[in-house]
Amino acid sequence: MICIAHLGPLGSYSELAATNYAHWLKIHHNKISKLKPYNTIAKAIQAAADGESEVAVVPVENSIGGSVRDTLDMLWELDSLKIQNNLVIPIHHALLSRAANFSTITTVYSHPQALSQCQKWLTVNLPDVVQVATSSTTEALPRLSDDDTLAAISPLWAAKLYDLPILADPINDNPDNLTRFWVLSRNLNQHGSHTSIAFRLPDNTPGALLKPLQLFATQGINMSRIESRPTKLALGDYRFFIDIEASLDDPNTQAALQLLKNCTKNLKVFGSYKQIQVPLA
Amino acid sequence: MICIAHLGPLGSYSELAATNYAHWLKIHHNKISKLKPYNTIAKAIQAAADGESEVAVVPVENSIGGSVRDTLDMLWELDSLKIQNNLVIPIHHALLSRAANFSTITTVYSHPQALSQCQKWLTVNLPDVVQVATSSTTEALPRLSDDDTLAAISPLWAAKLYDLPILADPINDNPDNLTRFWVLSRNLNQHGSHTSIAFRLPDNTPGALLKPLQLFATQGINMSRIESRPTKLALGDYRFFIDIEASLDDPNTQAALQLLKNCTKNLKVFGSYKQIQVPLA
Repeated sequence: MICIAHLGPLGSYSELAATNYAHWLKIHHNKISKLKPYNTIAKAIQAAADGESEVAVVPVENSIGGSVRDTLDMLWELDSLKIQNNLVIPIHHALLSRAANFSTITTVYSHPQALSQCQKWLTVNLPDVVQVATSSTTEALPRLSDDDTLAAISPLWAAKLYDLPILADPINDNPDNLTRFWVLSRNLNQHGSHTSIAFRLPDNTPGALLKPLQLFATQGINMSRIESRPTKLALGDYRFFIDIEASLDDPNTQAALQLLKNCTKNLKVFGSYKQIQVPLA
Repeated sequence: MICIAHLGPLGSYSELAATNYAHWLKIHHNKISKLKPYNTIAKAIQAAADGESEVAVVPVENSIGGSVRDTLDMLWELDSLKIQNNLVIPIHHALLSRAANFSTITTVYSHPQALSQCQKWLTVNLPDVVQVATSSTTEALPRLSDDDTLAAISPLWAAKLYDLPILADPINDNPDNLTRFWVLSRNLNQHGSHTSIAFRLPDNTPGALLKPLQLFATQGINMSRIESRPTKLALGDYRFFIDIEASLDDPNTQAALQLLKNCTKNLKVFGSYKQIQVPLA
């Protein structure tokens, strides 16, 4: 039995990603797993680091909101978890409420990212409601059952789980809204289509970031993503998270990483991984 | 009379930044200004773009949380606002509550960034309280006056404004917590210590990001910050925001920007600006 840690609660996009991963494990490895929800991303990742669960399935990037900072910061700080797989989940926001129509709604609840992904729709359809931030897209749903002035922006399938009517759907401003998840565990994976690393720069001279990027270009390796995060030590001091389109067991990658040690500080290699294709559970 | 748009409500860090800027305008330009609060960063920026106010003072980066995405995204989309000045404000979180001591507190309210900046302190001192996200650090304060089970993480000076006792202070996990603000208006400023630009890349080939960075290094210009933001068009498609330590009216900068047009798409120049030193108002 494999224990999969994820961000709860019931009906969240993270739960859907974890369910899909469990499904993939069954089909491709004939392994049975169980889901274990946590109320923050940090706690789900810590559970995998401590061995409380075998893996954690956590969001890393959304096509609208950008990187999930808690995930990158935890991965850097723990220094013990590696990336096993990559999953992409389509985001499909719905407006759930017991209201008969929009006119009686005074308050809309959701996670700040979901609220921001529906701002244009809200401006047109519910311009005067109070928008209240919650810690997940489904946290407020229990409150909606006996108050028809309240609404929530939640994943479509949460309507069934919480027995709530769907008033509008989809309501995300951008229909091509996707979230990428990583499966994390304590084993370093050497083979895959992508590899993720992170580092700090030794100094702040012109071109300090140029040297690491040049190494990859010289080896013909494409960089698919670069993200800077503050080191939390001083304003203007960053660590860089980079994804490359190459495998760790490729000699070109090994050559680039070897040279990278000379022009970076605290180089961390999170391993190689591939995209897993799953039917929606 | 200069109208300064900023993120409200009363007592927020953005209000403090706007107050400091008003103070600086009075001392250095003998200009009188008035503050106008908005309930989102996007609305404050839009007010400056529409001419409803002369300038907007908005957060752009925190030393712990990183970039303020709403500010970068709005700046890119509007394409009409430029950066006039840079202000740095120290962040000083306090626990405000009518509770006699920690033991009666059941709920702590604050903005998600402030909650995340006090996680270690909360784990030690208030491990069992429910943490509730609000849209600003001061939004919940009116609710605290008649309920001693509630507390909020707010700027220290908000205690006086809302007549609430300070139970603990400072409570941020990192004492060197700073937020950088930009003053935005419709005038392009050509002179300053720093210049900010943004662009997309023409393709996704190895080294596509390398070329723009190389141009700056060749001119001996240091890059003080790079931030990638999703274009919202597809997962893995980014725009890059870059700060350089050079002025727009410097010939080296002009040469680099001229060549930059050949290896980027949608190049945007947000102007040059300097750091303004202000006494805390």
